Amino acid sequence: MKKKVNVNALFLGPKSENYTFFKEMLNFLMDDHAAWRQDFHPDDAPIVTGKEQTQQDFLTTLQKTREALIELAGNLQIKSMPWFSPRYQGHMTTDTLMAANLGYMLTLLYNPNNCAYEGSPATTALEIEVGRQLAKLMGYDPQKAWGHITSGGTVANYESLWLARNLKSIPSALRAVMPGLVADLDEWQLMNLPTGKILDLAERAQCAGIFDEMRRQSVRGKGMAKQNLGKVLVPQSKHYSWTKAVDILGIGQENLIFVPVKDNYRMDITALKREIDRLVETRTPVLAVVAVFGTTEEGAVDEIHEIVRLRDCYEVQGVSFYLHIDAAYGGYARALFLDEDDRFLDYNKVSRQHAGQGILHHDTDWLTPEVYEAVKAMPEADSITVDPHKLGYIPYAAGAIVTRDRRIIDIISYFAAYVFEKTDDNPMLLGSYIMEGSKAGAAAAAVWMAHKVVPLNITGYGRIIGYSIEGAYRFYRSLIAAHPIRVGDKQFEVLPLTRPDINIVDYAFHELGNGSLDDMNRLNQSIYEQCSYKSGPVYGSDFITSKTALTREEYGATPQLFVKKFGIKEGDWERLGSVYVLRSCILTPYFTNNTTYEEYWQNFIKAMERAISRIGTSA
Amino acid sequence: MKKKVNVNALFLGPKSENYTFFKEMLNFLMDDHAAWRQDFHPDDAPIVTGKEQTQQDFLTTLQKTREALIELAGNLQIKSMPWFSPRYQGHMTTDTLMAANLGYMLTLLYNPNNCAYEGSPATTALEIEVGRQLAKLMGYDPQKAWGHITSGGTVANYESLWLARNLKSIPSALRAVMPGLVADLDEWQLMNLPTGKILDLAERAQCAGIFDEMRRQSVRGKGMAKQNLGKVLVPQSKHYSWTKAVDILGIGQENLIFVPVKDNYRMDITALKREIDRLVETRTPVLAVVAVFGTTEEGAVDEIHEIVRLRDCYEVQGVSFYLHIDAAYGGYARALFLDEDDRFLDYNKVSRQHAGQGILHHDTDWLTPEVYEAVKAMPEADSITVDPHKLGYIPYAAGAIVTRDRRIIDIISYFAAYVFEKTDDNPMLLGSYIMEGSKAGAAAAAVWMAHKVVPLNITGYGRIIGYSIEGAYRFYRSLIAAHPIRVGDKQFEVLPLTRPDINIVDYAFHELGNGSLDDMNRLNQSIYEQCSYKSGPVYGSDFITSKTALTREEYGATPQLFVKKFGIKEGDWERLGSVYVLRSCILTPYFTNNTTYEEYWQNFIKAMERAISRIGTSA
Repeated sequence: MKKKVNVNALFLGPKSENYTFFKEMLNFLMDDHAAWRQDFHPDDAPIVTGKEQTQQDFLTTLQKTREALIELAGNLQIKSMPWFSPRYQGHMTTDTLMAANLGYMLTLLYNPNNCAYEGSPATTALEIEVGRQLAKLMGYDPQKAWGHITSGGTVANYESLWLARNLKSIPSALRAVMPGLVADLDEWQLMNLPTGKILDLAERAQCAGIFDEMRRQSVRGKGMAKQNLGKVLVPQSKHYSWTKAVDILGIGQENLIFVPVKDNYRMDITALKREIDRLVETRTPVLAVVAVFGTTEEGAVDEIHEIVRLRDCYEVQGVSFYLHIDAAYGGYARALFLDEDDRFLDYNKVSRQHAGQGILHHDTDWLTPEVYEAVKAMPEADSITVDPHKLGYIPYAAGAIVTRDRRIIDIISYFAAYVFEKTDDNPMLLGSYIMEGSKAGAAAAAVWMAHKVVPLNITGYGRIIGYSIEGAYRFYRSLIAAHPIRVGDKQFEVLPLTRPDINIVDYAFHELGNGSLDDMNRLNQSIYEQCSYKSGPVYGSDFITSKTALTREEYGATPQLFVKKFGIKEGDWERLGSVYVLRSCILTPYFTNNTTYEEYWQNFIKAMERAISRIGTSA
Repeated sequence: MKKKVNVNALFLGPKSENYTFFKEMLNFLMDDHAAWRQDFHPDDAPIVTGKEQTQQDFLTTLQKTREALIELAGNLQIKSMPWFSPRYQGHMTTDTLMAANLGYMLTLLYNPNNCAYEGSPATTALEIEVGRQLAKLMGYDPQKAWGHITSGGTVANYESLWLARNLKSIPSALRAVMPGLVADLDEWQLMNLPTGKILDLAERAQCAGIFDEMRRQSVRGKGMAKQNLGKVLVPQSKHYSWTKAVDILGIGQENLIFVPVKDNYRMDITALKREIDRLVETRTPVLAVVAVFGTTEEGAVDEIHEIVRLRDCYEVQGVSFYLHIDAAYGGYARALFLDEDDRFLDYNKVSRQHAGQGILHHDTDWLTPEVYEAVKAMPEADSITVDPHKLGYIPYAAGAIVTRDRRIIDIISYFAAYVFEKTDDNPMLLGSYIMEGSKAGAAAAAVWMAHKVVPLNITGYGRIIGYSIEGAYRFYRSLIAAHPIRVGDKQFEVLPLTRPDINIVDYAFHELGNGSLDDMNRLNQSIYEQCSYKSGPVYGSDFITSKTALTREEYGATPQLFVKKFGIKEGDWERLGSVYVLRSCILTPYFTNNTTYEEYWQNFIKAMERAISRIGTSA
């Protein structure tokens, strides 16, 4: 089999274990870049002379830079989050790949701007390549798909809804400019064409030379006034970027419908169907449905296969919608399902492969058929958000969007790209095909470096993410098996919120015998405050976590099931409508090691004991 | 006086002249960061062992990283643009500040995400500080203003129009939720309240506890359907992000009006007035007017003071609009007008100060009253885009937006910020107040470092940008004074498009006696192709430039004036509607040196001779 990556050789390490290597590379890139400058027209004389470099004001300016850097360094040391350490189990971040960091640092010195090819002859090509790699990872045909880097998942989500919105308005626009093309379709049918069909029609408009006129008649030209493009459906567990998206895009927040989630925090497909039926009944179009692959708060994976099945059923009935997957967090986990030749693995082979290659222990029992089927169904979506700066282990800022059918670019492009029929003037003029303008080529280079060193399958990313899931499951099972913590004469139990779909574990502590949700919330809030920036700089902390509040406003009745497990008295949930939980995104790959894990689990328990004791004494 | 910065000590240099210093700092930051990791819980054992580090698969993985970095380095060397050299006079970029690069590289290792304070306790504060500094640079009261980093000017422009759009819908929303507040205002008056008045009303809604309900009734909640918020007016010279903005925001491209520019490529204020009068006549609101400070193609500075005056006159007549300045390119040039204590200089003192401090030569005669008044009037605008990664000499990606009145944040915020009345849960939760979500804290740190070393007044940025304007004016005057270039028996003249408002110089070559615009366009296109990536990697090029085509479609009849200067025959402009010009953004600070400038001017003329000769022989 192909060489699997050694995960411990990928990161600088919690104790800077790979310092020598990293520094060697850093010096290489600096020297290499400096030589590049010197060798450009070697006959050009230096502009800054040795004599000037010894002058007082020259030295003073250098000293200002030195002092500013030292001040910044001190500031960062005191206040930064030590994500590199397994003691940090908070937000969706951990150490980043040395390859990505070095790629970013080297490219920063060349400072390319991927907005226009002319500003980035080297890195625009890398971004196009990375886009194809991500499309392939998502199961798309890289020859037909399209993908690019964004500044983050939020912007990628905006772009997807921008695509969906403009696309939805194309059929009606065609009726205005080329009525013959859609003569047999009534208003409702025009609003319910599948994405592929709309793009086929748009292509015919292009052949007929009326593409720009069609775009002018679409929402792009006409605006949202007088348009009723329908509703956007997202699960309750959605990221708040969706609420911002419908505002920005002029759709309006009242046209965003939150679909209830089940007790596992996955979208309730029955509820989704009920919503769509209700809309169809009133002849309200569904602009888009968004599924989430790895919710921000719970790491839940929506049952994408069921949504796809639903969409297919509706299409038979003449109802269709754009399907986007917000896999900003979880997207890279698809690498766990691709074998060393990037082929999608059969269900019965996945766990065996993971165990056989030492990616996940045999008894971890992580994979469920639902998660497998959801992952498998991803390429049925029209577009997917997937962030390199989350499970891609890339430094900020690098999100990405991939779309199944690259013809969709011209629904939003400024210059009509006609799918890269490159004209003289715009070879890969990214800024005109995407939402953003100027963008760091260094981010694309960082992702390219990472993908070069860490293959997007089980030999690379699958291994890193597998280790992190292994760690999450160890933590999850330890929480279940944990004995109550004794503090004085009190005992405190801990329960996980739900079985993790990937590597986020939510949990809450509770004093045995206590029936008050107020008290329980206060307990967990107090633990959080002691294990976060709330108690001051965290550099001295033993354990750092994040938290979330699951509220009725956002989640309906779902969190009540969790509350009930603790024997909270009737009425408390109804009254408070919020349960406070601790949230650990286990991105660290180091918990796959038995010794390391055991050490950190003991550390966790001791930290919790200390935190709870302190509450007791301060109360 | 306070210590002025030594510009030559700020950059790595065209020949890596400051290599020793930069490398020393790079090693410092690496060691400092590595120690930070090691010192966090010194008793935690290393996870990666020395033994493992000698294993074959570990070494193989390191080697993969090394090889990928070498491949990337080679790729960058061959294809990147050598902006560091004064031979590069193309796009809006040159060498970047060492302070900024070092700040970025150091902070990248800490990988903060400024979306949420919890992910960036160090760098969120730096971003807030930088926002205040930029607000102050723009002449705003930093205590009342608000600013933050964006991924670029494009996104900053979107955010400004998002603010303007939502704001415009607030008065009507108030009529729905708190009719008493606006009882005496009719529909037209509601659509014509000045920004400050709308924010006062919104504040009263907040006190009355109906702020969220008001937001729900605004376009944020209701969407753009059924709304008529009016037109957006931008000069013809605008950046294409404005065309994208009205699409994205659901305003529609047909509601974007292009105001003609004068022969100096500044917005024609008479034409602007004519447009507004026409709109007022048909009771169409003006959603926003955008002025440009430093157009992308010509570096033109719109007469902001005249637009402000016009707005004030209209307000007397009950007509108002949001005013945004797109100073993405030119914004930092305002530093030329602030004395060493950041006080805005009187007109009669500016040139004297510049000459006295050696920022601009006495006979450069750059500053015009129009540019001065435009700069002075900037703080009268509601918001301003200003990009650190342009005239801030910061690496990509760092744009910024500043707004005059921070109360405006809550018109778009997700969590109502109530202007930083910080609640427990959202201390500076940037992601909920701005358009973007995840964002690199490293970008904020880079800008912070730059501002720390280079003051935002004539002792710092004023000096660098002054040098660059000095260079642009030398180039401009050399073009005017240039003798025709002889190639064989032909002679070629060169003329600049217009007197530069800042530091962009457009110009075109023309064969003496030739009356064909086709021929002239081909000549300049061919020169461009030889002096750009079009002729292959530019590492061997003598001179690199960019180009632009001034078309009738975008600029109306304005470019014809330039065409006429060459004696082009009647009818050619009418037929072609496009003139091809070379465009040099002179950001390099090194042309202030007589010897350097002369050398590069000679180099330019020789490069042009060679380029034109080659055309002759290949034709």
